Amino acid sequence: MTEKVVIIGGGAAGPKTAAKLRRENPDIKIDLYTQEDIISYSACGLPYYIENIIQSPETLIMRTPADFQKQNIDIHLKQKCIKINTDDKTVQIEDLISGNKYEVSYNTLVIATGAIPDLPNISNRNLKNIYTLRTIQDGINIKNKMQTSKNAVILGGGYISIELMEAFVQNNLNVTLIEKNSQILKMFDEDFAQMVTDYIIGRNPGQVTILTNEEVVAFSGNEEKEVTKVITSSGKEINADIVVLATGVRPNTDFLQGSDIKLGINNSIKVDKTLKTSKQGIYAVGDCTDNYNLITNRYTWVPMGSTANKEGRCAAINISGGSCFFDGILNSTITKYFNLTISIIGISYREAQELGFQPEFAIVTKRDKAGYMPNTGTMTLKLIADKNTQTILGIQGIGEGDVNQRINTVIPAILGKTKLESFMNLDLPYSPPYSPAIDPVLNAAQIIYHKING
Amino acid sequence: MTEKVVIIGGGAAGPKTAAKLRRENPDIKIDLYTQEDIISYSACGLPYYIENIIQSPETLIMRTPADFQKQNIDIHLKQKCIKINTDDKTVQIEDLISGNKYEVSYNTLVIATGAIPDLPNISNRNLKNIYTLRTIQDGINIKNKMQTSKNAVILGGGYISIELMEAFVQNNLNVTLIEKNSQILKMFDEDFAQMVTDYIIGRNPGQVTILTNEEVVAFSGNEEKEVTKVITSSGKEINADIVVLATGVRPNTDFLQGSDIKLGINNSIKVDKTLKTSKQGIYAVGDCTDNYNLITNRYTWVPMGSTANKEGRCAAINISGGSCFFDGILNSTITKYFNLTISIIGISYREAQELGFQPEFAIVTKRDKAGYMPNTGTMTLKLIADKNTQTILGIQGIGEGDVNQRINTVIPAILGKTKLESFMNLDLPYSPPYSPAIDPVLNAAQIIYHKING
Repeated sequence: MTEKVVIIGGGAAGPKTAAKLRRENPDIKIDLYTQEDIISYSACGLPYYIENIIQSPETLIMRTPADFQKQNIDIHLKQKCIKINTDDKTVQIEDLISGNKYEVSYNTLVIATGAIPDLPNISNRNLKNIYTLRTIQDGINIKNKMQTSKNAVILGGGYISIELMEAFVQNNLNVTLIEKNSQILKMFDEDFAQMVTDYIIGRNPGQVTILTNEEVVAFSGNEEKEVTKVITSSGKEINADIVVLATGVRPNTDFLQGSDIKLGINNSIKVDKTLKTSKQGIYAVGDCTDNYNLITNRYTWVPMGSTANKEGRCAAINISGGSCFFDGILNSTITKYFNLTISIIGISYREAQELGFQPEFAIVTKRDKAGYMPNTGTMTLKLIADKNTQTILGIQGIGEGDVNQRINTVIPAILGKTKLESFMNLDLPYSPPYSPAIDPVLNAAQIIYHKING
Repeated sequence: MTEKVVIIGGGAAGPKTAAKLRRENPDIKIDLYTQEDIISYSACGLPYYIENIIQSPETLIMRTPADFQKQNIDIHLKQKCIKINTDDKTVQIEDLISGNKYEVSYNTLVIATGAIPDLPNISNRNLKNIYTLRTIQDGINIKNKMQTSKNAVILGGGYISIELMEAFVQNNLNVTLIEKNSQILKMFDEDFAQMVTDYIIGRNPGQVTILTNEEVVAFSGNEEKEVTKVITSSGKEINADIVVLATGVRPNTDFLQGSDIKLGINNSIKVDKTLKTSKQGIYAVGDCTDNYNLITNRYTWVPMGSTANKEGRCAAINISGGSCFFDGILNSTITKYFNLTISIIGISYREAQELGFQPEFAIVTKRDKAGYMPNTGTMTLKLIADKNTQTILGIQGIGEGDVNQRINTVIPAILGKTKLESFMNLDLPYSPPYSPAIDPVLNAAQIIYHKING
């Protein structure tokens, strides 16, 4: 039995590991160190806090240090791990308040240091009112500044940018999103990314601008060192009272450079299916670890709160002597822009081609309920399957209808490599308030099957 | 190539077969005979028409005979098939208007005669204002009578009864539902049936009564032969201006008794996976056919509009020289009572025990979105898995939250016999407006896995 477990990191995965460990082991010592002054919060909820759908930042906190203390888990705030010594099983911690450094020994170590913004190199990046969004304090700062702002610029065209755009639009700011690639949402096929762009622009024409193939080269500011303009490679000068850099994140693993803990893709920590790192007695969970993609059979890095929670739970079971395998991921993501659901699972048609699959696709636009029912919503689904194996490689879904239900219906079929022939006649429950007699996702499967097999 | 296809039956499966056949074959002759005066309608939408969510009965009609005529499909209304002569490949038809009988020859025959009410033997069943609900005319009659009624009695405790109860409650009638078994919704486990009962009663106490273990022995009427009371085996006399017999249906196959077309369970027509009957050149689709249950590996009879549509499509492909296999069903059903979604897939815990499985179950009550988001709904899920194979046997879901999404997530996993160990870490997309970080259905799987494996 492990006597002393040290956990580094306080976002989602670390606290989840701690809580599950305690449920499995009433007696072991559990210490969690985090550089932040807050733990166990939902970073994914921050855009909704900024939008003011959620009023108080405390709402996003799942459990406080006091809650953990009741479970006899010691939380150490503002304590940053700066080094791991795997030989004598200690971690070096820096007290961010006093500046003191000290060592802590462990029997089992869990690294859950998450991800940090991967900042672009842009002149005058340190002007005031230029933010990233990762911590609760970031969210508070952005929300405060938003109240007195008229013009916002968001760098990057991923999910967080779209969620922030909703927040700013809802609060009557003009918003410009700047993406250096030729499309926003780069994991989607171009046609679907364009549909999202069209929806966003169409909903608030004049208020919202999306620039692609455009790079920010500099910010300019006023005498108070506040940002006032964003300057792009094509020479555009865009007024900005507030700027958010949402150009991506990278694993928070700089402190492991030169250690004997093996790193993988993007410097994420290599873990096996039991969440063990390359060093005995050291586990890693959450956004700092690599991920195995079950469709491509390649390692990837897709930091997601849901994966963090599952990995934390799984690692705790394994540390406790149980057996839990986290097999891998399917690149499943979802977000929304007002009423529009946006989701992709698996790989796009473009990626399938790049990876050497023989992909076929079907696009259907359908209502989500029987056509004669009130309040139906439409959705457009793009299902991608491999001609050779006749199995599903991915699905993209966009619409005001219930996309999530259809997306989720496909996921176990991707995992189980269900043949299209079986999937297209899948016995989904039917009632007019819930779906058409033949569900849109089955329509899409029928079309692909027909395209492949005639 | 088939030259002349005759289809008998005009509900969902027959018209679907006709339409798909025409798309696949521009040149063959297609004739559809139905005893009704209307075709291609959604019987599943009738309760919503009665409730007045849908105003006009025409809304439920997918395609009219004129629409079919444009596709060169001949629809013959009020023409009832009374006999099939498989030796000389003819069907005998009775013209219900003139009473004349005549023969029609076919190269390929498709039987799609659906199901008819299975009426209980009760004294004075022929009094006025005692209805069944199967055809559009039934719906019109019930809706008309409902307008002037105060007290409704529904016999039977299945989905249609619950949908009708909603319609009547919404239109301010007092409603009594009478079920002869010890619970309503007999495919559910008792605990879940009770939860539905409690919700129904709790929503409109005083207005709604559910009687179980109670059988109707007689109706009594007034001088105009209108029903006025329903009399039960325990001696209750319940006032009724309108009665609906929703005690179940049976395959409409009486005209096949004594023919050489093999019948199966409940006198449904035995079909193989290509929808062929035991006689060459004769297919059967929809509510009149038997169904193969992919979990129990037994034949069953579960008449569903979704299955009818899939079978019609599949049969048309096979008749056209293509290849389509309809492997079977998972007993998937869903309905609602106002905001409460009610769904079951696969088999219940009780049925799993009866069939010799080694079932384990988990019940979870969870919110459908991140807890801090507004407008979350709760749901209770009961997941059932087999200890030996560690695969899922079924799921029951009830709640005002998004049950359908979770139910659908389980279905391909049942089909694919996905192990619990894989399923419980399934990569479902997460975002606060769509689900908690660990989805309720994965929580349930984790609990069962833990119960089975420690």
